[in-house]
Amino acid sequence: MYEDFPTLKTKINGRRLVYLDNAATTLKPKRVVEKLKEFYYTSYSNVHRAVHTLASRATVELEESRERFAEFLGVSPQEIIFTSGTTMAINLVAVSLLRSGLLKENDLVLTSLLEHHANFVPWLRLSRFHGYRLEYIKPSGRFGTLEMDDLMSHREKNPKVLAITGLSNVTGQRIPVEELRNIFPNAIIVLDGAQLLPHERVKPKEIGVDFLAFSLHKMLGPTGVGVLYGRKELLEQMEPFLYGGEMIDRVSLEDVTFNELPYKFEAGTPNIADIVASKEALAYLEEIGFEVVHERVERLTQLALEELSRVDGVELYGPLDERQHGIVSFNIKGVHPHDVAHILDQEFGVAIRSGHHCAQPLMNLLKEQSLLDFPNSTCRASFYLYNTEEDVRIFVEGVKKVKEWFSR
Amino acid sequence: MYEDFPTLKTKINGRRLVYLDNAATTLKPKRVVEKLKEFYYTSYSNVHRAVHTLASRATVELEESRERFAEFLGVSPQEIIFTSGTTMAINLVAVSLLRSGLLKENDLVLTSLLEHHANFVPWLRLSRFHGYRLEYIKPSGRFGTLEMDDLMSHREKNPKVLAITGLSNVTGQRIPVEELRNIFPNAIIVLDGAQLLPHERVKPKEIGVDFLAFSLHKMLGPTGVGVLYGRKELLEQMEPFLYGGEMIDRVSLEDVTFNELPYKFEAGTPNIADIVASKEALAYLEEIGFEVVHERVERLTQLALEELSRVDGVELYGPLDERQHGIVSFNIKGVHPHDVAHILDQEFGVAIRSGHHCAQPLMNLLKEQSLLDFPNSTCRASFYLYNTEEDVRIFVEGVKKVKEWFSR
Repeated sequence: MYEDFPTLKTKINGRRLVYLDNAATTLKPKRVVEKLKEFYYTSYSNVHRAVHTLASRATVELEESRERFAEFLGVSPQEIIFTSGTTMAINLVAVSLLRSGLLKENDLVLTSLLEHHANFVPWLRLSRFHGYRLEYIKPSGRFGTLEMDDLMSHREKNPKVLAITGLSNVTGQRIPVEELRNIFPNAIIVLDGAQLLPHERVKPKEIGVDFLAFSLHKMLGPTGVGVLYGRKELLEQMEPFLYGGEMIDRVSLEDVTFNELPYKFEAGTPNIADIVASKEALAYLEEIGFEVVHERVERLTQLALEELSRVDGVELYGPLDERQHGIVSFNIKGVHPHDVAHILDQEFGVAIRSGHHCAQPLMNLLKEQSLLDFPNSTCRASFYLYNTEEDVRIFVEGVKKVKEWFSR
Repeated sequence: MYEDFPTLKTKINGRRLVYLDNAATTLKPKRVVEKLKEFYYTSYSNVHRAVHTLASRATVELEESRERFAEFLGVSPQEIIFTSGTTMAINLVAVSLLRSGLLKENDLVLTSLLEHHANFVPWLRLSRFHGYRLEYIKPSGRFGTLEMDDLMSHREKNPKVLAITGLSNVTGQRIPVEELRNIFPNAIIVLDGAQLLPHERVKPKEIGVDFLAFSLHKMLGPTGVGVLYGRKELLEQMEPFLYGGEMIDRVSLEDVTFNELPYKFEAGTPNIADIVASKEALAYLEEIGFEVVHERVERLTQLALEELSRVDGVELYGPLDERQHGIVSFNIKGVHPHDVAHILDQEFGVAIRSGHHCAQPLMNLLKEQSLLDFPNSTCRASFYLYNTEEDVRIFVEGVKKVKEWFSR
């Protein structure tokens, strides 16, 4: 596998790269990058609106990607909308629901304090313009852990929209997404799958989720591609988000009629080459097997948690049990996370992320329970299929050293 | 130059590819595709929010692209916003102006019947939701040619927004963009540069344009990247279009404050690799010289017009004079454009586009003057720097043959 990811050969200050920033983005297998090249050199053209050979090839390649993702999620290709990423996908859902009146003034939108800003700021800021009510599910468990009771206690509120992450990008907590439909039978459920989808196959129709958004660059694909699954019955009622070419049927000076699904939601020239190459990322993951990826990442996560929990002065966030997957957030007493990340990089070749991870509401929550002088940010190590136990060992050794150096 | 574009070696039914669909998208030089590969393999990471080595490299590469485009346009890097393309850029401008109250109910938006749907449908459809007035400049000249008088006659209307293309994607007419500010001194001018920027360097500050949008894939760059220039004073007053990570400063449960420019308008993980590779497209064009590209394309355009105007039964659209650049739209009497495009492709290896070119209002206008049974669509050949006089000859021969075959 090491050979499949040329970036892993990068030297950081002469040391082997230990890449533990997978929740931010993943490295790319050769197969994906080679597909980009092959496509640009042999089949590149704009799509859909032409009859020449290259345009047909490009259209077939693009639509094949759509079919692959539809198959992957167990939905219809008409329900797969390509976007520029999860952020645009969630903005699309919010704005389109509002424009079409499916979400109205005084309706209730429910989200949580676990969310990445991508699934928080749109709902928060648009409420100013559109006057719907907004409430937050507050995780009551250990360091930002969402408990079933937290969900259950909002059951009676009958929200119009429930917008929630499938896996926290800070604590790594996997949310019981299978239970959401039972708890909120009438809600339009919008699942932010940016962190969940790289680790498991989710079937939105089986679990009764109406929208599911995720980004390909977090699962071995190129940058610039997001997938939005939307339930057909809803998409059909919804006003488009972007207006322009390809998404219309007829345009007069008075009005327009829209194209059929999914094109109605795909105005403009799509990110053709990256969408085409994305199917190679999916194929790579499927050939290895999502179960294999999951098992490996789970093992590394538990190993890291186990090792770090033995280090005095390290505070670990999240549930710290089997609900935590792929992500380990922590702080070292008296050391700023940016310093930890900087030293791990420079002295050990270990790439981790430090900061608020675009989750400031959650940072405020962690602060409430922290026994440290909480810096409103954390160190975050995140794992993926190419990481090894040796990676975890180098990382943990690094953390120990940083702690030692700063306690002198 | 032929060697720089591997796609040109494609065989279409055993024939050399003659690629004349450049207004839809251009082929990519090796330099751009190799940059994608090099970047993914040596410097790939997510950007901005991390301190590790790869993240710094990726951030430097991305911001270098921004600086290059800022230099190219003669503006500040703070005024360069990367989008997924021209369509998203124009939607961003329209929605952000509305959200911030810079465009209000009963204000006048002026656009033209020359526009691509990307600069037409957003203004048309959003007027339904926001109640501003919408008027169209109707080209009065030969087959959709916009005359100075057409602009002048709207002068007194004092529009709040003027949204206009720099070069028609159907007729190839280059609009006198330098005159717009004089004619409409108070308007917020939004210039759709998707067809103009591949052919000439535009300095928005010099010509007094407030917004300028274009797409990199139409000027040798990868798919999925648009550039929006916005005048700083306006951008600062404007509400963001996409909400999410990276574009905020602080997030509380009640409200948010936004990041500085340009990040305020760049929510979510950008299309990092493609933005990075885009600067290679720009560098390639600059090394050859925009003047050289312009001169070559001009020569091919005039040659094609000259040759086609001699073919009986061919109707040519647009001004047919020095205002027409890079694009030749036509119909053959009695033959549907799709059939023309299909035969040119299959029998001559010539890739042209046929259809309404996402400009239905203009199609209706062409119909008014057409002497044919106008099919509400045209054939469109469009040229770029790698095209040759030989390409034009093969194309014209093809058109003649199609005409012959169909008149038997």
